[in-house]
Amino acid sequence: MTDSKVSTAAALVIGNEILSGKTAEANVVVLARALRLAGIVLERVVTIRDDIDTIATEVRALAARYTWVFTSGGVGPTHDDLTVAAIAKAYDRNVVIHEPTAAMIRSHYGDTCTEGHLRMALAPEGATFVVSESTRWPTVRIENVFLLPGVPEAFRYKLDALMPQIVGGIPFVSRAVFVRLDEGPLVTALDSIALEHPNVEIGSYPKWGDPTYRTKVTFDARDRESVDRALEAFLGRVPKEEIATVE
Amino acid sequence: MTDSKVSTAAALVIGNEILSGKTAEANVVVLARALRLAGIVLERVVTIRDDIDTIATEVRALAARYTWVFTSGGVGPTHDDLTVAAIAKAYDRNVVIHEPTAAMIRSHYGDTCTEGHLRMALAPEGATFVVSESTRWPTVRIENVFLLPGVPEAFRYKLDALMPQIVGGIPFVSRAVFVRLDEGPLVTALDSIALEHPNVEIGSYPKWGDPTYRTKVTFDARDRESVDRALEAFLGRVPKEEIATVE
Repeated sequence: MTDSKVSTAAALVIGNEILSGKTAEANVVVLARALRLAGIVLERVVTIRDDIDTIATEVRALAARYTWVFTSGGVGPTHDDLTVAAIAKAYDRNVVIHEPTAAMIRSHYGDTCTEGHLRMALAPEGATFVVSESTRWPTVRIENVFLLPGVPEAFRYKLDALMPQIVGGIPFVSRAVFVRLDEGPLVTALDSIALEHPNVEIGSYPKWGDPTYRTKVTFDARDRESVDRALEAFLGRVPKEEIATVE
Repeated sequence: MTDSKVSTAAALVIGNEILSGKTAEANVVVLARALRLAGIVLERVVTIRDDIDTIATEVRALAARYTWVFTSGGVGPTHDDLTVAAIAKAYDRNVVIHEPTAAMIRSHYGDTCTEGHLRMALAPEGATFVVSESTRWPTVRIENVFLLPGVPEAFRYKLDALMPQIVGGIPFVSRAVFVRLDEGPLVTALDSIALEHPNVEIGSYPKWGDPTYRTKVTFDARDRESVDRALEAFLGRVPKEEIATVE
């Protein structure tokens, strides 16, 4: 489905709190939607613990394989915030203080500014910085990797600010049919339509406990004609009275 | 932190709908909490698209490295449900029909039972099955891998039913301190306490927009004494009036 010349993306979610269930991960869906709107497929998400070598290994692997990589988590000032050090290790660079960020931190905290606060100005040597009025501190970028915070509010602001740099996508066209039948009676139709429309990604999702429909069938491609053709073919194979909605 | 003799776990989340942002992933937090209660660390979660070779490769890699592996998604009857076929491929086995499951499906759907419904009785040859009154169909297990559905309600029922098979954990003791300060002024105390209590996992999590506290500091270990000692040491380093709650 994915043209190899089109940009791709991966995410690395870092944090013991996600893997222990103390916190429900909330950033991937936000990233996935933003990338999708930009016409980029998020191909892979890896979630790992706060461990410097694991982070370094994963970032290296993802950055080599995908056009864009986004990390979530581990960028605060405390002992369990290891992302900057790990990415410096992955790229074999020193960790240095970014003076413009340090100046912003000093100005924000004034007399209460501590060494701890200033750790948030550390970055791998040679990183670039995404500055925006909507984010308190700049976002660190090193080659094709962006370092985002785990706190959902901060993740969103920073993602909005950096998205203009994420180029190389081709927008998707998405349509959906909501059907009153469960998936069982739809299988034959879906099998043959998926086969006849290989450039359209067709998804089938059962829904429990919704009185209005039982299966959502989605049609996605990078051109509208293909999507419309596959959707019409599907509508032709399902009894009209079983169709709840077409989007 | 993790004793190498203690059971570990990984999860594989399968589905284009998660990576396109159409659906927010909801099963990992449920799995993480259940494993944590059983004293097992969820070490890694990988989220991938509906692709048979990718699923096969990932399952093989995770099953070799972790005690228990849980897949989420791709077990329905339609063309995009590839998990059974992929896992059969990973273990070099045929896909066969599990007659007891097929009988349950026939009995449930009666006259409306289709070939599509019966696809849900397919499993890799040599799989075992977790049967429970709370789940409609048995859960497929192959060696240390459990195949769970992506639909959150079904995932929960099936997970509850299989948890008694998940052995080898040592329960955690978890405590937390909610502090009115941000992370900056806590850095020095946390650094030294993390260093002095290496067998306690100490986490620090900033919270935005909560009037009652600004940082949650967590203490986790497999024995209560170690947790209590680290927590007391931390309380001794923070001004009393800045402590909101101790759990």
